[in-house]
Amino acid sequence: MPIITLTTDFGLSDGYVAAMKGVIAGIAPQATVIDISHQIAPQNVREAAYVLATTLPYFPPDTVHVVIVDPGVGSARRPMAAQVGNYFLVGPDNGVFTYALPAGQPAVCVHLDNPAYWLPTVSRTFHGRDIFSPVAAHLASGAPLAALGAPVADPVRFDTQPPRQEPDGSLRGQIIHADRFGNLVSNIPGAWLAEHIWTVRIAGQQMIGPSLTYAEAAPGQLLALVSSDGTLEVAVRDGNAAGRLGAAAGEPIAVYPHGNET
Amino acid sequence: MPIITLTTDFGLSDGYVAAMKGVIAGIAPQATVIDISHQIAPQNVREAAYVLATTLPYFPPDTVHVVIVDPGVGSARRPMAAQVGNYFLVGPDNGVFTYALPAGQPAVCVHLDNPAYWLPTVSRTFHGRDIFSPVAAHLASGAPLAALGAPVADPVRFDTQPPRQEPDGSLRGQIIHADRFGNLVSNIPGAWLAEHIWTVRIAGQQMIGPSLTYAEAAPGQLLALVSSDGTLEVAVRDGNAAGRLGAAAGEPIAVYPHGNET
Amino acid sequence: MPIITLTTDFGLSDGYVAAMKGVIAGIAPQATVIDISHQIAPQNVREAAYVLATTLPYFPPDTVHVVIVDPGVGSARRPMAAQVGNYFLVGPDNGVFTYALPAGQPAVCVHLDNPAYWLPTVSRTFHGRDIFSPVAAHLASGAPLAALGAPVADPVRFDTQPPRQEPDGSLRGQIIHADRFGNLVSNIPGAWLAEHIWTVRIAGQQMIGPSLTYAEAAPGQLLALVSSDGTLEVAVRDGNAAGRLGAAAGEPIAVYPHGNET
Repeated sequence: MPIITLTTDFGLSDGYVAAMKGVIAGIAPQATVIDISHQIAPQNVREAAYVLATTLPYFPPDTVHVVIVDPGVGSARRPMAAQVGNYFLVGPDNGVFTYALPAGQPAVCVHLDNPAYWLPTVSRTFHGRDIFSPVAAHLASGAPLAALGAPVADPVRFDTQPPRQEPDGSLRGQIIHADRFGNLVSNIPGAWLAEHIWTVRIAGQQMIGPSLTYAEAAPGQLLALVSSDGTLEVAVRDGNAAGRLGAAAGEPIAVYPHGNET
Repeated sequence: MPIITLTTDFGLSDGYVAAMKGVIAGIAPQATVIDISHQIAPQNVREAAYVLATTLPYFPPDTVHVVIVDPGVGSARRPMAAQVGNYFLVGPDNGVFTYALPAGQPAVCVHLDNPAYWLPTVSRTFHGRDIFSPVAAHLASGAPLAALGAPVADPVRFDTQPPRQEPDGSLRGQIIHADRFGNLVSNIPGAWLAEHIWTVRIAGQQMIGPSLTYAEAAPGQLLALVSSDGTLEVAVRDGNAAGRLGAAAGEPIAVYPHGNET
Repeated sequence: MPIITLTTDFGLSDGYVAAMKGVIAGIAPQATVIDISHQIAPQNVREAAYVLATTLPYFPPDTVHVVIVDPGVGSARRPMAAQVGNYFLVGPDNGVFTYALPAGQPAVCVHLDNPAYWLPTVSRTFHGRDIFSPVAAHLASGAPLAALGAPVADPVRFDTQPPRQEPDGSLRGQIIHADRFGNLVSNIPGAWLAEHIWTVRIAGQQMIGPSLTYAEAAPGQLLALVSSDGTLEVAVRDGNAAGRLGAAAGEPIAVYPHGNET
């Protein structure tokens, strides 16, 4: 039973996602379709890239991940499919696979230019339904990647600002995602936080950490902990850190060995 | 593997949709259930009719489409099932199938009056769970439509105002749906727009069109294009046309051959 | 085809729910996963308990119900699984199964302390993915409950205030859920309302009831009826009773035999 996941900014009020599922069911009735999110902020390619990257490690081998956050639909941006490790990616070549297709890792990417794997009629504004869904269904049914189109050597990646370890022992990074609870997830690896107590500074506030669990803080209190994605996260016990701090993706975060703040 | 789709105004916070899926799983465990939308505006029969109609062409033959937007639940409105072309419809006879059951097309409709196909206990306020879900599951399992109830000759349809081509060459229609992006979808067929450049007027604004893609406009700019449903659509590149124009379903739209506006 | 249901406060914008589904698909690919709700108000254990309890009667035997509303994740609260009647429960032992695990009914509960049924790596903040999902998948695949951990004799239950029948014939209860339509569901059994016409008082308003259907009231009018869950409900025809009355879960409701109000 192959699995196809869907990540889009289509929301759930219109029939767009269902049209994609109908197309998939027609071509690959044996596939199980699992929604990752359809609530990506409209056209927020970076948010989609993050949500996909933190979710895909939990799927079985051979899963086909479809991502449609596609402000350039119908323009010159390439429709793309890729195989990396034991999973497949299908979506626009606009950077949405920046994390799922890491620069150093071997991957095969193709430009979806073979209409034999599309719907017979292709609209200019809904390639999710007309190109990407049928391609994903064919991949899940065993179609070879190479049949879908010509090789792509240079998939688009957006710039990422990696976290840094400074000579003075402090760590600098940024928030890369605010989740539904208002938890602020940074790009600082939890592994960098071992063996010390740290002072975490963000948006003019500071706290000691990392805590081990949310329950360690008093209700309403700011805390820093290692998130379920393995990176430093700032949260408010039973509350919303993004709202409290007025912070979102992009907010700088700095961490100092406790007693050595400068 | 038969498919059952669900379209409701139940939202996703309560357990109403899940109760329907539980009932279906008990009767037709082999069926695949696909959500079309549960975010139809409460009791908005026209919105449900539109979302269903634009989605159902993408489902495989024999799909059973269940729609529960049912302000008259428990009153004299008839519960209904129908077969038209290669699909089935199940829901209240309140106009919600106006587009899916086109007036000119042969269809068989029945009044769901045979309790053998319902849950043993039927509430007065949740026929989606107690009547429509079991009926859909039985249909998906091969129950004959005629067994479900007596024939209905006159299913309810709401009035629709068809688009017009005026003697002066202009086209008049209206917005029939605003989607999650704020894109305004009209009832003017894209095919009527061939061979000309047009001036589109809506809500005191005008634009030249149709554009071929969203990306053709500058960010923030109004544009007109042919939607993925095949009709004229007004959008804002990377923005929200419904919000910008203060327009919703029902808004008139007029189109003039460019250079011949009057 | 075993069924696993999911009820959480994770929302649908992040990838948390999908990560759980990926884990389940890897362990129990034959299971059908059905969402009950992911829109439980953050950390509202009582709302989750109610939504689960009113939905689970509609699922086939042997369904595994997973509930993750877990403010104490990573703290001393026990992860738990239970079998009661013909269904299974999996989630934190924090009261979320108060209704699904009724005090009088025989049930077997275990403390999930056997890591052989977890993911190899367990985070401190996302037991839904790392403990509860793999446990549910193993249960759905036939793992014996007793293998999952040591028996629990005293699962946590929150206090509930049962409805009362007063000596003067009146009934007292409270609202236990406000649904997406703003319908206010009370804990007063519909069966107590037989054979009389009643005056219902809530939030300074009163109405005669129960009505049989929503359609019995004029648009915009308050009405009382027996809900699809079998208890007294206050609604506004084509409107929102919670908003109109400024009422939510916890609001007292009183019912008097008509003509005998005091």
